[in-house]
Amino acid sequence: MISVVILGAGNVGTHLYKAFRKSDSVTITQWYNRDLSNLQIYKNDVEIVDDLSKLKEADIYVLAISDDAVSELSKVLPFENRLVVHTSGSVNVHDLDKKNQRGVFYPLQTFSKHSEIDFSNVPICIEVLEKQNLQLLKDLAVAIGSPNYKISTEQRQTLHLSAVYVNNFANQLYRIAHEISDAKSINFDILKPLILETAKKVQDMSPYMAQTGPAKRNDKKTIKRHLKLLENEQHKAIYELLTKSIKQTHGR
Amino acid sequence: MISVVILGAGNVGTHLYKAFRKSDSVTITQWYNRDLSNLQIYKNDVEIVDDLSKLKEADIYVLAISDDAVSELSKVLPFENRLVVHTSGSVNVHDLDKKNQRGVFYPLQTFSKHSEIDFSNVPICIEVLEKQNLQLLKDLAVAIGSPNYKISTEQRQTLHLSAVYVNNFANQLYRIAHEISDAKSINFDILKPLILETAKKVQDMSPYMAQTGPAKRNDKKTIKRHLKLLENEQHKAIYELLTKSIKQTHGR
Repeated sequence: MISVVILGAGNVGTHLYKAFRKSDSVTITQWYNRDLSNLQIYKNDVEIVDDLSKLKEADIYVLAISDDAVSELSKVLPFENRLVVHTSGSVNVHDLDKKNQRGVFYPLQTFSKHSEIDFSNVPICIEVLEKQNLQLLKDLAVAIGSPNYKISTEQRQTLHLSAVYVNNFANQLYRIAHEISDAKSINFDILKPLILETAKKVQDMSPYMAQTGPAKRNDKKTIKRHLKLLENEQHKAIYELLTKSIKQTHGR
Repeated sequence: MISVVILGAGNVGTHLYKAFRKSDSVTITQWYNRDLSNLQIYKNDVEIVDDLSKLKEADIYVLAISDDAVSELSKVLPFENRLVVHTSGSVNVHDLDKKNQRGVFYPLQTFSKHSEIDFSNVPICIEVLEKQNLQLLKDLAVAIGSPNYKISTEQRQTLHLSAVYVNNFANQLYRIAHEISDAKSINFDILKPLILETAKKVQDMSPYMAQTGPAKRNDKKTIKRHLKLLENEQHKAIYELLTKSIKQTHGR
């Protein structure tokens, strides 16, 4: 049985709480938040606490708080030489105060407040400063059914950057398609299966192999007609830049 | 029972053939291709033909051929006043020769040669010049289990353009993430669940509502760090342009 204390009650903290609770091999010793009001609805299921001095002993302290708060909170923890991990994609593991053993338990996924998360679809990126803690964090990932990967700080920061491309930027392309189609009174539902299929395709095939379309074919006629259809200058600039990028990738 | 003749043996033609064959309410009168060698493996299941003068009567002639060939092939069809449709996202319906009744049966999806297609995930965009043919084309879509939408030429061309954003361009972002992570020896598998979840999210939520990340939050520190991590000038330009676009969308 792995005992954990969760610190933080945002999206990541709440989803981890639910995953830990469901697991037979994890016990949640306490759930800490500066402001207890967010945790009141859980008070019958777990010990909730807003006073750091009341933190009990546990195998792992999981900091699920904003990037900027990690360093500060780790400094004021009233104990030493225990395992403290943060859950951020970008914070350096050395930003955790060195009075404790340090690690990272970074779930690479997009978390919405209200939707249920299936942790078998949440890869956990693990980093440790003390080797002996690697297995414990791997066990914690396995306990919630997550695939896990040992990665370095540099790799984690690169993953965080890559995630911006495949998540935030891809979503902005969906948004632009929404704007373009809305302007012509087109039901956005028509595009949804294509969005899903495009994402599914690269689950088994490299994005390189999966590519199709006018830019890859260097179909100048279609590209020209598309640019003529675009009224928004920024949409046009994005079309041109990504077309150029695809051409370069595919040597056209 | 709807009788169809398919003309063309590329991806779209082949997938439509399989979908029509599975349907209880469609009969495939013939399958035409200029070059019969592609069709030989189907010759026991359907009448295959490479001579236009041998085309038999059918309710619908489905041209599943390259954009550039639509006009020409429609001209040399040796019959008049029958229903001829093309399957292209960008070709004008008027490019079909006016000696026949004309329409469009455009499946908006990405087709790979080897993967099976579930047509319940393939919206069919329908356009007709003769009103009385609308119901027949809707029936054909229903017969293969596809959602269908009546759209105009302008809407179809806008959809084709939108599809480039959500398919080709989104896929290129996956490719860039692949390049970035490969350069640091990161397993691309780690990013696959996020790719899928991002696409799933907008099935029930607008892309606007689904957006998260440093650009939306205008988190200058993270954006600056990301730009510093990027070594490729084009990746950097794409990061900057899409960040600007997200900021604009979310009023930052």
